[in-house]
Amino acid sequence: MILAIETSAKAASVCLTQDETLIAQSYQNSGLTHSQTILPMCEQMLKHCGAALEQVDVIACAAGPGSFTGLRIGLSTAKGLAWSTGKPCCGVSTLEAMAWQAAHMGGEILCAMDARRGQVYNARFFSDGTTLTRLCEDRAISLADLFQEIDGKTEQIIIGDGAGLCYNYGEGVQCPVRLAPPHLRFQSAWGVARAALEQSRRGGLCSAQELSAHYIRLSQAERERLERQKQEQNC
Amino acid sequence: MILAIETSAKAASVCLTQDETLIAQSYQNSGLTHSQTILPMCEQMLKHCGAALEQVDVIACAAGPGSFTGLRIGLSTAKGLAWSTGKPCCGVSTLEAMAWQAAHMGGEILCAMDARRGQVYNARFFSDGTTLTRLCEDRAISLADLFQEIDGKTEQIIIGDGAGLCYNYGEGVQCPVRLAPPHLRFQSAWGVARAALEQSRRGGLCSAQELSAHYIRLSQAERERLERQKQEQNC
Repeated sequence: MILAIETSAKAASVCLTQDETLIAQSYQNSGLTHSQTILPMCEQMLKHCGAALEQVDVIACAAGPGSFTGLRIGLSTAKGLAWSTGKPCCGVSTLEAMAWQAAHMGGEILCAMDARRGQVYNARFFSDGTTLTRLCEDRAISLADLFQEIDGKTEQIIIGDGAGLCYNYGEGVQCPVRLAPPHLRFQSAWGVARAALEQSRRGGLCSAQELSAHYIRLSQAERERLERQKQEQNC
Repeated sequence: MILAIETSAKAASVCLTQDETLIAQSYQNSGLTHSQTILPMCEQMLKHCGAALEQVDVIACAAGPGSFTGLRIGLSTAKGLAWSTGKPCCGVSTLEAMAWQAAHMGGEILCAMDARRGQVYNARFFSDGTTLTRLCEDRAISLADLFQEIDGKTEQIIIGDGAGLCYNYGEGVQCPVRLAPPHLRFQSAWGVARAALEQSRRGGLCSAQELSAHYIRLSQAERERLERQKQEQNC
């Protein structure tokens, strides 16, 4: 069984899966702080299932890209649960996790999260209806650069909390775009569990200590610190 | 906002939606009794969202077909919540609700629940990728009769807790069949909320008192009572 946590954006979710089957999931997109909700969601989900944390084989978590605070809350929770029970962890790409939600639709999947500052966090995948092939690494990219890369002929299935941004831009440049349906559009713990299943088959597990975030970009605080250092050096 | 309840089979779920958007969902397929889990799931979901029952516009529930006991627990919970707050109810077809989960896939959707005794509860729909057209009424039907009705050329997207049964039978008679992906295969409250959205647009709301189950077949107890009456008349 995989216990998965997703807190990369505004919504938070946790789920329990056995292979590809969803045993339980709790999802909320209400805007409350993840630090208040994520641990009670885990506890109550397990309780509703009559399951104990000891029965879980792997603790999976969306490791980024995403909201700095959101990711830290999810990863800290995963680390705590894994460290206290000695379970292995699996940190997966937030973008790959959401691609799994649309994998059954087949075709090119464009995953997008709003990264602000005119960019999206993005990765592209090809699905044959069952398996995913990654077409590029996770990255922060401008919409202009992203749609210049796409040939403009192949329909893009757009998913993620940046889907609306990409859809509007794609329509504007006459790229065939299709929004993932509303019940599959946003990040969810099922996608994290599904990505973790693949990653664990490839041996991609780690310890609670090794589990870490993949932010892609520097945080605002780090950018400002580097900026200050640079200005100090120039003085 | 719609609060939706799904307890027609082994899994139980509740969700909160605003139009087509999922605000929160709690789902469990662990085999625990719905009577123990469904009300705490509602309460905790609302609590995690910082929402009050008073903010909900409609209480929706899967009204059948399905497990007699499961449906009664779901409907009783919906009636209780609606009666205590004076909210309108919306009882939807369990089969139509699951069809909405696959509506984005486009094509012919075959909804199936295991009805035991060699039958499935079934309805068929056509989706243009966005809207559903019903091809037949909800019914209990044998797999042989069901696949005789289908032309055997058009791919059937199969969904529901009877999907495995239908898929195997369909393959056996060389009908092109495709299983809905595992995260969308089983009944869920999102489907109920989506069906209720359509039904409420058509004016299909009712009071807590009017909300009732649509069983299609008689329960085992009723069948046995009729059988006894028949035997007594024959004596």
